[in-house]
Amino acid sequence: MVNHKSRIVIALGGNALQADPKDTTAETQLMTSKETAKPLVDLIEGGHELIIAHGNGPQVGQIVAAYETAAHSNSKLSVMPFPECGAMSQGYIGYHLQQAIREEMKNRGLQREIATIVTQVVVDEADAAFVNPTKPVGSFFTEEEAQKMIAEKGYTMVEDSGRGWRRVVPSPIPVDVVEAPVVKTLVEAGHIVITVGGGGIPVVEKQGKLVGVPAVIDKDFASEKIAEILNADYLIILTAVEKVAINFNTPQQKSLEKITIEEAEQYIEEGHFAPGSMLPKVMAALKFVKSKPGRRALITSLQKAREGIEGRTGTTIIGL
Amino acid sequence: MVNHKSRIVIALGGNALQADPKDTTAETQLMTSKETAKPLVDLIEGGHELIIAHGNGPQVGQIVAAYETAAHSNSKLSVMPFPECGAMSQGYIGYHLQQAIREEMKNRGLQREIATIVTQVVVDEADAAFVNPTKPVGSFFTEEEAQKMIAEKGYTMVEDSGRGWRRVVPSPIPVDVVEAPVVKTLVEAGHIVITVGGGGIPVVEKQGKLVGVPAVIDKDFASEKIAEILNADYLIILTAVEKVAINFNTPQQKSLEKITIEEAEQYIEEGHFAPGSMLPKVMAALKFVKSKPGRRALITSLQKAREGIEGRTGTTIIGL
Repeated sequence: MVNHKSRIVIALGGNALQADPKDTTAETQLMTSKETAKPLVDLIEGGHELIIAHGNGPQVGQIVAAYETAAHSNSKLSVMPFPECGAMSQGYIGYHLQQAIREEMKNRGLQREIATIVTQVVVDEADAAFVNPTKPVGSFFTEEEAQKMIAEKGYTMVEDSGRGWRRVVPSPIPVDVVEAPVVKTLVEAGHIVITVGGGGIPVVEKQGKLVGVPAVIDKDFASEKIAEILNADYLIILTAVEKVAINFNTPQQKSLEKITIEEAEQYIEEGHFAPGSMLPKVMAALKFVKSKPGRRALITSLQKAREGIEGRTGTTIIGL
Repeated sequence: MVNHKSRIVIALGGNALQADPKDTTAETQLMTSKETAKPLVDLIEGGHELIIAHGNGPQVGQIVAAYETAAHSNSKLSVMPFPECGAMSQGYIGYHLQQAIREEMKNRGLQREIATIVTQVVVDEADAAFVNPTKPVGSFFTEEEAQKMIAEKGYTMVEDSGRGWRRVVPSPIPVDVVEAPVVKTLVEAGHIVITVGGGGIPVVEKQGKLVGVPAVIDKDFASEKIAEILNADYLIILTAVEKVAINFNTPQQKSLEKITIEEAEQYIEEGHFAPGSMLPKVMAALKFVKSKPGRRALITSLQKAREGIEGRTGTTIIGL
């Protein structure tokens, strides 16, 4: 059972914003955000401090694609750089979440303020991810178009399973959250904060200056980083399932409830978790729990978040 | 002369972000933002509290146009609603300004935090502007396309001086700034805040809920509103000229320096200021000065802002 008034960083998964991957309109996203607001406001109603992070894969992909398509057919429009597209997605998603959560709080008579902070996350230029970009972003192109983009813009483009050529960007590890002190001020004043949207706008430090770079920071690792900086009690990583399982999709499948650091490390080593899916979530959760005694991480579904921090479901990693 | 440590709301004009209307790329906008940061950081260096507002006309127009063009040529993309485009523009512009101002502060050894707040501004559904939309947004269309949009989406479309058909949206008066308490918390903690970008994301209240509406709120009036709410000492409205003039473009042209409320009202009545240009700036400045004794408003150029609040240039409206 979590103590009263915990400081919680919660990382929303993609389905918290777009329930149906085929319906990516803003109107549907706003409706989905209103459903997502309910379990989040359960936590706020519980008296907790809440810092909300979220993914932006489909949204930033759509913004990139809209600009690419528009630039292709209208010579007066140029392609928007990737960090700026990320900043736009933070404004777009933050607006929906803050409006939806405010409405749900108002419905329950809760008097809390909520705000979205446009957030830059520092990554290391020497991160090995920059040598080997892996994250596909934006539209598909023909080989001819792709070769032109490689030559003219220096993009890394790869052929994607026969569907065409696509740009790939690196996925480096977050090092620092530029706006963390601002988030801290707001949280300590009792406000709810939406931050590190899409893992944050990726920036590197060059001679003390911040410079945006085309990259995608994993939102669970960015959430872990801000949770560490803010000295949070809890990191909640939301996913499609109620509990993490080992021996997934085999007759020996077993749901995990409370596990120790050692158990989590052992399961990772044994290869129980899928890379690009459950593995980064378990790794981010584990990193947080290991960062300081007393910190806990929970992996569960959005709907079970409150029960989860009450110790009644989900997979919790417990440290010393 | 302004007192030490004044609370200043400053409204940036379009040229603070895009010096050349023909070059609307993100790369150039970021460079222009870095120039804009210098006079702003002069004010921060002067020890003042700074709340920064800005326009978004070209940027939100570009986002709307990118989505319109993309949706036209790719059936998988749909048009993005106008309030969401405004939210995107706040993320985009805020990211540039916060990065540029942070860099300039760092160059001067100043230790202040800066953040962009995604900001909703409440307008009144009964505002007369909704009956008569006047603000053109987005791309030009053929008459046939325009009639289709009128029928399918309920847009108001007007023929624009032989250049084609264009959507127009209302420009209502701001009533309240939803995120003002959050901005107040940050300002009182000593942080710099970027807010009400593009005049704010326009929302109306329906049965206590906020609902985004397609509208453009004048950024000078939105700046005036947040300046009132935050109990600012100074509202600075930046424009292309150092001083406001009467009898503009005539042999009797005369620059204004310090004027009273009564003088400002008289000049407005005499029709000295161009609607859609200097008139709304003078009106917003006047509204602020009239809102409470001791409040001052300054209209000047970005480069003269610091000299202006030191009483050495610009046009200042002085109340009781």
